[in-house]
Amino acid sequence: MRAKNIITLLTDFGEVDGFVGVMKGVMLNILPRAVIIDMTHQVPAHDIDAGAFILNSSFHYFPAGTVHVAIVDPGVGGKRRALAVQTANYFFIAPDNGILKFIFEHERPLRVFALANEKYFLRHISNTFHGRDIFAPCAAHLCAGVKIDEFGPEIFDYQTGEIQQPLVGIGQIIGNIIYVDTFGNLITNIPGAMVLHQSIEIGLGTSIISSISRSYDEQEHEPLALIGSAGFLEIAIFRQNASQRLNVRVGDAVSVKFIN
Amino acid sequence: MRAKNIITLLTDFGEVDGFVGVMKGVMLNILPRAVIIDMTHQVPAHDIDAGAFILNSSFHYFPAGTVHVAIVDPGVGGKRRALAVQTANYFFIAPDNGILKFIFEHERPLRVFALANEKYFLRHISNTFHGRDIFAPCAAHLCAGVKIDEFGPEIFDYQTGEIQQPLVGIGQIIGNIIYVDTFGNLITNIPGAMVLHQSIEIGLGTSIISSISRSYDEQEHEPLALIGSAGFLEIAIFRQNASQRLNVRVGDAVSVKFIN
Amino acid sequence: MRAKNIITLLTDFGEVDGFVGVMKGVMLNILPRAVIIDMTHQVPAHDIDAGAFILNSSFHYFPAGTVHVAIVDPGVGGKRRALAVQTANYFFIAPDNGILKFIFEHERPLRVFALANEKYFLRHISNTFHGRDIFAPCAAHLCAGVKIDEFGPEIFDYQTGEIQQPLVGIGQIIGNIIYVDTFGNLITNIPGAMVLHQSIEIGLGTSIISSISRSYDEQEHEPLALIGSAGFLEIAIFRQNASQRLNVRVGDAVSVKFIN
Repeated sequence: MRAKNIITLLTDFGEVDGFVGVMKGVMLNILPRAVIIDMTHQVPAHDIDAGAFILNSSFHYFPAGTVHVAIVDPGVGGKRRALAVQTANYFFIAPDNGILKFIFEHERPLRVFALANEKYFLRHISNTFHGRDIFAPCAAHLCAGVKIDEFGPEIFDYQTGEIQQPLVGIGQIIGNIIYVDTFGNLITNIPGAMVLHQSIEIGLGTSIISSISRSYDEQEHEPLALIGSAGFLEIAIFRQNASQRLNVRVGDAVSVKFIN
Repeated sequence: MRAKNIITLLTDFGEVDGFVGVMKGVMLNILPRAVIIDMTHQVPAHDIDAGAFILNSSFHYFPAGTVHVAIVDPGVGGKRRALAVQTANYFFIAPDNGILKFIFEHERPLRVFALANEKYFLRHISNTFHGRDIFAPCAAHLCAGVKIDEFGPEIFDYQTGEIQQPLVGIGQIIGNIIYVDTFGNLITNIPGAMVLHQSIEIGLGTSIISSISRSYDEQEHEPLALIGSAGFLEIAIFRQNASQRLNVRVGDAVSVKFIN
Repeated sequence: MRAKNIITLLTDFGEVDGFVGVMKGVMLNILPRAVIIDMTHQVPAHDIDAGAFILNSSFHYFPAGTVHVAIVDPGVGGKRRALAVQTANYFFIAPDNGILKFIFEHERPLRVFALANEKYFLRHISNTFHGRDIFAPCAAHLCAGVKIDEFGPEIFDYQTGEIQQPLVGIGQIIGNIIYVDTFGNLITNIPGAMVLHQSIEIGLGTSIISSISRSYDEQEHEPLALIGSAGFLEIAIFRQNASQRLNVRVGDAVSVKFIN
């Protein structure tokens, strides 16, 4: 597989300071025909897990050969390495801090390289903005035809991160809220396939939900459960912010009991 | 008219979760040369009227043949239909819930089709994210040359929505605030042409304004009235947020008295 | 130098109302092959100094020939002029209110023209949205090949704005916080070169910092100083919002004492 001219950007840089615009300038300097797509720049500051979740929900909708750049990077300028990763269909450019944990878990074949060849960096490297100085130019050079093994040595001791799996017991699953979206919908780490076609009772805080709805509007005013767009069990309230109304946050427990 | 390769996106999805990035990935998969422009993704959640207002203020500035995708869609996955609409100069892709009400009111000729042909959807259709699974791929296929009547049957019973018109009496107009912009400027539903070249007195809450200004800086510290960029009477305060300072919101009444 | 087909946009328009989308529609109408990059649209409303700082940190990362459009424009529709500016490598389109002050200070050669030729404006000019009616179409026409002196007369009495320089005394510098970024990092107007390779003591409110760190993660929990990505002395706290925690804002004083 060769890199296409499509680059996606996922960061916690926000859209206020011009950081993202600068990265695009750097990339257009190297590859004028680059098609640069913003995945999000509003990952909560320093929240590597949220960045990993969003990346995992989105990367596979892009054309094969797309270069995905994912930067949530509290350790910028310190000892953490920078990575270029190749999977069957995509490339990833990111700091080595676990933001690619779902890629490392699920994608095969998988090759991981350290970004070490300064030839592909900007000439002056700051200690605070590797998005501009290292990640953006390397992504653009990759799209421009540089082979991934030219960026640095292949490595095997990258940070695999931690993936919180639901506990599956006899007649019961205990999972967690792993993401809260813009609408306040609560996404769990329980795969939809585990709970469909069964009689169940879902517990979240003091709420009990006893069926899986097909859509948000099947139930008004009360919490409902459905299979969300990323394929996981999701708790929502029609036209309301379930996170706020139920006072539920990332990490909170969700239980599913199977009823005979 | 044939569809151009320009697609605009107007949603209430926010820019946090990567939903919009995913839609762009889906479209680039179908039409790599698509030029995708964000109109806004910050329509207040579920606020169909605000989405309709923004769309109506903006669509006609784009080249003929542009495909405008407008998604504020609390009923996603439920019984509401999805639409493809053709007017003299543009195409629109949207849920059938009134978000196109100004298009239906003002544009002629007008043809409306239901999006029903699953050949142009993603293979797996979620019940929560039709932006990704239905609207994005249909928009891209339309740009790629699929004829609009291939997406589904022509329909005539679409939701026309409700347009709040000002009440015009003898020597007086009663209108409403229909939109508050980022700067806190208050946009009414009173066409500028109705109030220009006349002696008037505008009443809004406890404020009285007795002339139409040409620009925001003609008056300092006090509320002023002018004809806004969409052609409607607008109330503002120079360098201040009029909505906050006057405690005025969408729906509040505005009166215009004509003075002899 | 000729204009490239790259246009950047820096405004305080926000991304809620569709203003930016409309500007892009206008530009695509004139130049379908325009590559339009958002620098930021979240400059604090009416904050010309913040807009000038962001522009100055970013414009030079773009390919030569890029047209930079910078609009923070509280005086829209009033008496202020509109400008087209050419420097050695770039073009700038902006209101004449000081937002280009760093360009005027640092870039040579420099030619400044008033945007006066209505041939390149939209036909109908509002008094509230020159971004759409004047700046966007002029930027697109410039990219499309119109010579910069066709837009209006060369002028020399443009607003140069005010640049706050640090006070350099014997053994001491007094500077100011001139920008606070999304992460709450505090950027000063003290060039990094002035404080590197010296024994120093930095004072900011009640905090004293006695060394320059290489990266954000060199110090935990306590304020640290480093040279930021734009080359200026910056005060930060690892993984925290220094502005909030230290209660420091734009304009606050920063002192640097040199220790023998």
